[in-house]
Amino acid sequence: MSVPSNMQAVRWHPPSYDIRVESIPIPEIQHPDDAIVKVKLAALCGSDLHVYRGHGGVDKVHTCGHEFIGEVVSLGSSYRTNTQGRPKLYSTLKVGDKVVSPFTVNCGECHVCRLGYTARCPEGALFGSPALEGGQAQYVRVPKAGGTLFNLSNPNTWSTALSEQEKEKALTGLADSSLLMLADILPTGVFAALQALNHPKVQPILTGRPWPLCFSPEISTEGNEISFTPEDRILTIAIIGLGPVGICAAVSLLDALATRKIPFRIVAIDLLEARREKMKAVYDAIDASGKGSGEFEVLSADDAKVLVDDWTGGVGCTAVLEVVGHPSALTSAYNLVRDFGAIVSVGVHGEPPLPYTGRQVYNKNVSFDFGRCPARAMFPLAFDLLVKRQDVFGGVGQAASLIDRIVSFKEATENYRAFDKGEVGKVIFSPWDC
Amino acid sequence: MSVPSNMQAVRWHPPSYDIRVESIPIPEIQHPDDAIVKVKLAALCGSDLHVYRGHGGVDKVHTCGHEFIGEVVSLGSSYRTNTQGRPKLYSTLKVGDKVVSPFTVNCGECHVCRLGYTARCPEGALFGSPALEGGQAQYVRVPKAGGTLFNLSNPNTWSTALSEQEKEKALTGLADSSLLMLADILPTGVFAALQALNHPKVQPILTGRPWPLCFSPEISTEGNEISFTPEDRILTIAIIGLGPVGICAAVSLLDALATRKIPFRIVAIDLLEARREKMKAVYDAIDASGKGSGEFEVLSADDAKVLVDDWTGGVGCTAVLEVVGHPSALTSAYNLVRDFGAIVSVGVHGEPPLPYTGRQVYNKNVSFDFGRCPARAMFPLAFDLLVKRQDVFGGVGQAASLIDRIVSFKEATENYRAFDKGEVGKVIFSPWDC
Repeated sequence: MSVPSNMQAVRWHPPSYDIRVESIPIPEIQHPDDAIVKVKLAALCGSDLHVYRGHGGVDKVHTCGHEFIGEVVSLGSSYRTNTQGRPKLYSTLKVGDKVVSPFTVNCGECHVCRLGYTARCPEGALFGSPALEGGQAQYVRVPKAGGTLFNLSNPNTWSTALSEQEKEKALTGLADSSLLMLADILPTGVFAALQALNHPKVQPILTGRPWPLCFSPEISTEGNEISFTPEDRILTIAIIGLGPVGICAAVSLLDALATRKIPFRIVAIDLLEARREKMKAVYDAIDASGKGSGEFEVLSADDAKVLVDDWTGGVGCTAVLEVVGHPSALTSAYNLVRDFGAIVSVGVHGEPPLPYTGRQVYNKNVSFDFGRCPARAMFPLAFDLLVKRQDVFGGVGQAASLIDRIVSFKEATENYRAFDKGEVGKVIFSPWDC
Repeated sequence: MSVPSNMQAVRWHPPSYDIRVESIPIPEIQHPDDAIVKVKLAALCGSDLHVYRGHGGVDKVHTCGHEFIGEVVSLGSSYRTNTQGRPKLYSTLKVGDKVVSPFTVNCGECHVCRLGYTARCPEGALFGSPALEGGQAQYVRVPKAGGTLFNLSNPNTWSTALSEQEKEKALTGLADSSLLMLADILPTGVFAALQALNHPKVQPILTGRPWPLCFSPEISTEGNEISFTPEDRILTIAIIGLGPVGICAAVSLLDALATRKIPFRIVAIDLLEARREKMKAVYDAIDASGKGSGEFEVLSADDAKVLVDDWTGGVGCTAVLEVVGHPSALTSAYNLVRDFGAIVSVGVHGEPPLPYTGRQVYNKNVSFDFGRCPARAMFPLAFDLLVKRQDVFGGVGQAASLIDRIVSFKEATENYRAFDKGEVGKVIFSPWDC
């Protein structure tokens, strides 16, 4: 495929608040493992604002954006000559394939990637950072693309949980704006929900056996334990932060609880009424199969504390999902979690210290999971959820849509400004609209 | 059984460093659920030193000690009249039974206890604190004894993992000084090891499947993942702090890894050479069935960091057990743990804040488990280990013994002083020696 020599890209300039749409050279293959992707859609993410505001300690002009989908237009030589024992995409990816990338690069073949911890691959880099040009451009270079990309055109690389019918639907029926959610917000939401449901502190409730016998099905004690009541087996979970990731976490959690028929009470929490209204609209849009039979409430933090105490007789939440990335959200999480509860934090945290004393965490027997989603490793499960719940994840600009609008690059500067001010929710750029 | 009206007890007096052996009234049944236990042995624990030194914010004279074993001499009326649907000890415990108590009371029948989180029972209290007279006395009152005590005379209340032969051996062959380790140090060590081995972040290594597919045996992705190498499946674990609990954690971990045939590398760490020598002697005393086939090294923290980097090519430990209870140990744990690793902290922490910024825990995807061992819930598994490993846990005063000496109450004041100064390791009181 022949490509022109220049392209349009959304570029950040130091020191802050300076977004320019510029014409720059189209990226070229620099390494045999590279792919060049023609971008169909690229999104603006809350974490882009750190650099935008000049808080990132960055002084290098660079192309923004770490959420994009597109089509492969060029592949390095590895895709013909160096495929043996490597990630399957090195032998199967073709020019013309539709792909989505996680927000970071990962090689897919080192020890860290083999374990599935792709977000911390030593070869990793964040798109749209000084280390790697971003996806808010007409073309983007993807290093280690055979380990990084997810091939939306090839059902053989998807999870076996999808039926043939669902795979067919996925190939033809998913909007690009929905598929774009795979880049970050959907896998991160699924990651939060999955960590909560697989947490050891949650297992007594899920198995109906006391800690630590919940881990040892072969052992019983004929001694002292008392049978669980039905009330004991209700999971109580709070989700703090109802931006796009928090809403994805809620949908993922509801789906998993409904599928596994686990009784639950969930309270979804945000300071902002607009976000709470979005969460309610999304919840209303989920059909019965994805809602399960538990309670689901959307509240401010103070009201949520009262409700959780009422639900649990003062015990607190089994697990709390923190999807904000601010110390105050970690404090709220501590106040809501039960003794022997789990706080799952996927919020991006910075220099402030964790707001806990040693005594606080000892006295409540709290567990924590911190950190960045290994998005590439989450893709198969996140994709399954996207296919199942495209009724929820489909639209643009409606009450229940996670995406507010799709705009051209000409509107980039204004949309960065509006997004920063909270005047608009999730924005997608369509790089080829003029 | 008739009992005299007064007894000897080791009492703490404010403000600090004032231990007196005094004659006080023998405790009586105050509540129908109470038991009175005649103490055979009571131990001195590192955490007793908080109050001893006047750091506990305590100003009430009280009997010390939260580790004791003994014999039931009196039972409240519940044991005859209020047994229905309650912990089995309310219907089976008899005067004359030999019992061990966890360091805290728990009712055994509330929601928290049903889930196995006995260390946080709302009815709980710590023995040897202003809230509850301790076990360094000739008699001790045990509230909620039907939920709290473990009946060493009744194999029907033990775990089914023990064979009939092992149960017989346990009834007759275990020294009281060994059984006393059940009160605190052994279950706390088992708790630390168990949390590490059941941690979700460890599951890729144990299952050979990448995160998050390690949680979903029914799903596969025919896509990109690369098979694990044998090296990928080696667990690398550090244990920081080689007091009695740290040593118990090491023995428990080694036993579990040997039983499950998991390849491993363990580094056990302490500042003090005497503790490192004790750990080495204990390791040498373990027979081949309890050692497994991994590597086990005992080092200072700096040397351990070099070794772990060498073992793992700079990746770090899959899990770190923190058994110290000081912020510096948490910092060492962070430095040793890998990205997507787990820090299991059973050390008792106080007012200092956790020594981590939000960025540190986000950037390393660290998980933490904090808090107090639910000792009563751990008893069946800890007892199994004690029976299996009594070769290690048996002696007193030998190189490999966790217990340094057994002394009379007359020597209590001097032994508190020596223990506080680190001149002696674990000390046991024999309350009836004169």
